[in-house]
Amino acid sequence: MAGNTFGKLFRVTTWGESHGTAVGAVIDGCPPGIILDPKELQKEMDRRRPGQGGSSSPRKEPDQVEILSGIFTPAGADLPRSTGTPICLAIQNKDAHSKSYDGLRDIFRPGHGDVTYLAKYGIRDHRGGGRASARETAARVAAGAVAKQLLLQYNIEVCAYTVALGGVHVRHRDLSLIENNSYFCPDAEAAVQMEQRVQEVRSQGDTLGGIVEIVASCPAGLGEPVFDKLEAELAHGLMSIGAVKGVEIGAGFAAAEMLGSENNDPINPSGFLSNNAGGILAGISNGAPLVIRVAVKPIPSISREQQTVNLANEPVTIKVGGRHDISAIPRIIPVCEAMVRLTLADHLLRQMAVDCREG
Amino acid sequence: MAGNTFGKLFRVTTWGESHGTAVGAVIDGCPPGIILDPKELQKEMDRRRPGQGGSSSPRKEPDQVEILSGIFTPAGADLPRSTGTPICLAIQNKDAHSKSYDGLRDIFRPGHGDVTYLAKYGIRDHRGGGRASARETAARVAAGAVAKQLLLQYNIEVCAYTVALGGVHVRHRDLSLIENNSYFCPDAEAAVQMEQRVQEVRSQGDTLGGIVEIVASCPAGLGEPVFDKLEAELAHGLMSIGAVKGVEIGAGFAAAEMLGSENNDPINPSGFLSNNAGGILAGISNGAPLVIRVAVKPIPSISREQQTVNLANEPVTIKVGGRHDISAIPRIIPVCEAMVRLTLADHLLRQMAVDCREG
Amino acid sequence: MAGNTFGKLFRVTTWGESHGTAVGAVIDGCPPGIILDPKELQKEMDRRRPGQGGSSSPRKEPDQVEILSGIFTPAGADLPRSTGTPICLAIQNKDAHSKSYDGLRDIFRPGHGDVTYLAKYGIRDHRGGGRASARETAARVAAGAVAKQLLLQYNIEVCAYTVALGGVHVRHRDLSLIENNSYFCPDAEAAVQMEQRVQEVRSQGDTLGGIVEIVASCPAGLGEPVFDKLEAELAHGLMSIGAVKGVEIGAGFAAAEMLGSENNDPINPSGFLSNNAGGILAGISNGAPLVIRVAVKPIPSISREQQTVNLANEPVTIKVGGRHDISAIPRIIPVCEAMVRLTLADHLLRQMAVDCREG
Amino acid sequence: MAGNTFGKLFRVTTWGESHGTAVGAVIDGCPPGIILDPKELQKEMDRRRPGQGGSSSPRKEPDQVEILSGIFTPAGADLPRSTGTPICLAIQNKDAHSKSYDGLRDIFRPGHGDVTYLAKYGIRDHRGGGRASARETAARVAAGAVAKQLLLQYNIEVCAYTVALGGVHVRHRDLSLIENNSYFCPDAEAAVQMEQRVQEVRSQGDTLGGIVEIVASCPAGLGEPVFDKLEAELAHGLMSIGAVKGVEIGAGFAAAEMLGSENNDPINPSGFLSNNAGGILAGISNGAPLVIRVAVKPIPSISREQQTVNLANEPVTIKVGGRHDISAIPRIIPVCEAMVRLTLADHLLRQMAVDCREG
Repeated sequence: MAGNTFGKLFRVTTWGESHGTAVGAVIDGCPPGIILDPKELQKEMDRRRPGQGGSSSPRKEPDQVEILSGIFTPAGADLPRSTGTPICLAIQNKDAHSKSYDGLRDIFRPGHGDVTYLAKYGIRDHRGGGRASARETAARVAAGAVAKQLLLQYNIEVCAYTVALGGVHVRHRDLSLIENNSYFCPDAEAAVQMEQRVQEVRSQGDTLGGIVEIVASCPAGLGEPVFDKLEAELAHGLMSIGAVKGVEIGAGFAAAEMLGSENNDPINPSGFLSNNAGGILAGISNGAPLVIRVAVKPIPSISREQQTVNLANEPVTIKVGGRHDISAIPRIIPVCEAMVRLTLADHLLRQMAVDCREG
Repeated sequence: MAGNTFGKLFRVTTWGESHGTAVGAVIDGCPPGIILDPKELQKEMDRRRPGQGGSSSPRKEPDQVEILSGIFTPAGADLPRSTGTPICLAIQNKDAHSKSYDGLRDIFRPGHGDVTYLAKYGIRDHRGGGRASARETAARVAAGAVAKQLLLQYNIEVCAYTVALGGVHVRHRDLSLIENNSYFCPDAEAAVQMEQRVQEVRSQGDTLGGIVEIVASCPAGLGEPVFDKLEAELAHGLMSIGAVKGVEIGAGFAAAEMLGSENNDPINPSGFLSNNAGGILAGISNGAPLVIRVAVKPIPSISREQQTVNLANEPVTIKVGGRHDISAIPRIIPVCEAMVRLTLADHLLRQMAVDCREG
Repeated sequence: MAGNTFGKLFRVTTWGESHGTAVGAVIDGCPPGIILDPKELQKEMDRRRPGQGGSSSPRKEPDQVEILSGIFTPAGADLPRSTGTPICLAIQNKDAHSKSYDGLRDIFRPGHGDVTYLAKYGIRDHRGGGRASARETAARVAAGAVAKQLLLQYNIEVCAYTVALGGVHVRHRDLSLIENNSYFCPDAEAAVQMEQRVQEVRSQGDTLGGIVEIVASCPAGLGEPVFDKLEAELAHGLMSIGAVKGVEIGAGFAAAEMLGSENNDPINPSGFLSNNAGGILAGISNGAPLVIRVAVKPIPSISREQQTVNLANEPVTIKVGGRHDISAIPRIIPVCEAMVRLTLADHLLRQMAVDCREG
Repeated sequence: MAGNTFGKLFRVTTWGESHGTAVGAVIDGCPPGIILDPKELQKEMDRRRPGQGGSSSPRKEPDQVEILSGIFTPAGADLPRSTGTPICLAIQNKDAHSKSYDGLRDIFRPGHGDVTYLAKYGIRDHRGGGRASARETAARVAAGAVAKQLLLQYNIEVCAYTVALGGVHVRHRDLSLIENNSYFCPDAEAAVQMEQRVQEVRSQGDTLGGIVEIVASCPAGLGEPVFDKLEAELAHGLMSIGAVKGVEIGAGFAAAEMLGSENNDPINPSGFLSNNAGGILAGISNGAPLVIRVAVKPIPSISREQQTVNLANEPVTIKVGGRHDISAIPRIIPVCEAMVRLTLADHLLRQMAVDCREG
């Protein structure tokens, strides 16, 4: 079964590849009556746009999102509402330079999906990574911006930020700072060091990984055991982002080293006294904030010489030119937020069917 | 949408709770003609049975798996075959002591789903954790044993083992040793230290976490971008196991600290020269072994006093008695294998529909 | 994707074949808190039991339904409630005479799935029709009985009855009569003629078809355009019953002969003035009663000689002995009700996610 | 769960409403390597275009289909191939006259979804029927044209034609004639009478219904019992077309009047001797041609005065002006073909996963 749809009730299907006409998403299942201000959607798009911050690629895309269907402005209203029918969002590809990929038609870039796409499909769109390009995440962010409007009605807010980049780790988290620097970093001093690390590595033709943390307010009761536990679905969504190689909830891998008496979060009448659980118990949100971290691998497109093979399986070396980011951070930040929002929007709707007993 | 089904083509729905009549699974989509030797299924069940190894609970369940449907023994054959119709597997609950949970009817155990199940469903089966009990994983192992028979026809083998328990980490991995000790540990010396750690903690009324690693042989081409990437589905399946708080693929969180030039796996005509990718590129298996690690939190049922609240939201203290494991390791090992097998069986079938061009 | 699950939120997976250990169903998505009185479930089972009425087979099955999971009786309550977790229902096969099917191992019965099951799966359980047996519908009726309890909370009632059997058509419909005769016929005189027709045809070794009508009260707003329109899902569910060869809604095929001015249902402040639409407009229920009819083909197992082939594709003749019904009517009646109930339960829950705007 | 996706492996999600920017479809699961000649797609679009034949509306839409994603032209090839990634198809809305619907903002047209869309969603796009418009079927035809290319590789062909219109029934079927008249009618004389009937009714401001028959070649083995039987899925797809009120397979409702000995199709070594089954036994295709008929209701937009209510539930009369067809026939013909093709493409892929035993 083809895997381009995420969610079961708030269902998002993305489409489009790096050098096609456009990328986009169809949302089926957005409840009716949600105000969809095009400016609010655009704001989210702008946060992940290429070319902002020292680690980002110079490919310039306006990333203007169009709403092709699923909205209607009632008589007397200013802004369109969702109608409950499919919302198709489209973002044109304007700055694709297909020519510069001609040399990659017959060669497999290490760390990329070139070899696996060919193995799977027997045909490969080599231009800009095709469907495997991070360009596809523009569609996720657009869909996530719609989910955001729904979630805001339930006071659910999601925020992602960088906690490590190229070995520089934050020492504290002041979320009021994250829009102040180009790495969405909650530690001003660390942000400066991250920028230094990026410049250093850029000059070496190399790239960097890091860690993103996402927190979200969330009412108790979301998640569908036993297989669609909230953490399982969050992990699914986040791990589906190209650069992500690990996901942990709450204490995560650190919990493996703890005693039960340390890891359990005591409860008192006003709530949990700690949050090692990361806001989820037995697959269901417990009302405490969700806390998730993802490991982001370094961008595989490096301008240093690498060993690989061509279509004829002959050894060759490659130096990947073109316009590339030094790190998926910070542009992955709004993508992480989008995936968490899509997951929560879906589970919010799924819980409605459980709650129908109140009907 | 209720979340008790895993997989899209090889679909497993588990049912049953700790103190109901039985637990079980229905597999819809198992291809026809697979030989299902009841002894082979039982062998898998026996690996996760309670009461084997120092860290396990004394609840004694024979865990005899019955195949209620979906098989047929052709004339002249010894063993039944799958017929392509739903396979219902059932395992009776025999050693449930519901009475011993009477004291938990009105109280929420820290680290358990007691509070979240009530928040979600408005009704809670307090006996032995109800549906949130690890007892449900018996059904997963039974279904995974069916998947194993299918995968063996494609030379896909899956193996899980312990790489850390209670702070004791393996120093090397000799997979030939893992059936020799009760912790499925590939390092004999570490296994001894793990057992010591378990005994020490048991005497303190506490519990332990650890890390499980799973490796699998896998043909290139499995995985369905962009949302059902192989790593995303593996993470989904593994994170749906109760005690798991983190999942990483290949280099995982370590990749966050690497340079692109370190993390990329060079390719030569005979394959990849390293495996930081963990066998997956751009969401599709690349033919190298899959390597996955999961963080296992300590068992929340500890016999030390803990702070919590009751149904009236009054502060109370609790000491969880009853029959409990010290660690989810080793019994989680066959469950991890089952989830990886179910994921791979599903993706193997999904790839058939992609490959139909060969038809 | 295997096809043994019906519904998207109220999901029913049936399992089991004619001569296996048991048949049953797993319901995933039944909301919590629904009172499940085993006696109420059994009442539905008893309505479809073999051996009642002149057209039915003498196979005697007690059809006792067991609830293996998903229920819990709260302290102080008499009857179990659904817990929101999967409900597994099982019905043992007790009166299966596999031996009497030995002669059918190598021969294809006309009008049966013998030839197609082998073509599809490459293996065939020839005993009593295997999975294609009407025995499987016992599981549907059991699941439908659970759906009935949910629907009753929303005042949704479903009633099926015979409007034609063997060429005898009802002249009027008095629903108060349908439990008074063994054909669930709302016309007493027609019921007598139907019985005569059945006896006549039985003596000839032949079988009969007929038409079943189903009516249901239904609130406005159920149905999910554009593909999961309510009539589309009803047609799907009803057409999935073995003997059904046609489905029509409201005026149905008669609408093909009407003018627009005749077929349109005028509206006045108290509602629709006619019901050619059968309670559905543009795929969504309009508040008027649902009216559906299904064409039921004659039972293919006749005791007259028929021309067919064997496994070696040689021409042979066959006379199907054994214990068979003369018509799928009346036993198909509760199955039709079950499928309509399952469809409505599913759409009731699906509408909750649309209605969440009220949250 | 929102209902705008059809199919499980060959998955089509349509989007768009009558007066939005565009309508379209995303196909996820189209196998890679299928040649997609834009001219072939356009040919199918042109068959359902408005304004061709006496019963059709004068709305003029060029219905140019654009392929926004999912294709790639390999080096040296003339025509693009599917890549296995989502294919987004878009058709601009060019000739929408929204103004002419202003009078319908507060009034419910009989026979239309105006009242039910409002009941369901609480908001209604009154312009041209919004999402309930037949305009949406342009997207189905575009997607069906892609399915056609896949099916042709397996020699599966689908053909629909009119067998009744406004009470005029065909007396014989000569499929070579159906492209010769504007009603896709296989009986030249009947086609003339149909045209007369249309002109007659047009002058009276009324509209007509009819019956469409669809035949398809189909290999044995497609269909997924017990719920996704081939006839159940065909009925689902066809009944999801707005004007369809009934579906029958093979003998259909006539089977209800037959004896078993008449209805059973005898088998001899070269195949079935009759086709009352319509090519399907026990939910699986048997290799004989599929034969399906659908009842098409008259178009509800009539220019005669009708009784209805407004938003305030006050009685009003309405005369629907605007540009409307006299009958959904012939424009529904390519839509029926599309739905059958989508169903068969999906089941073809689903059978691959069953057949994997051959792997």
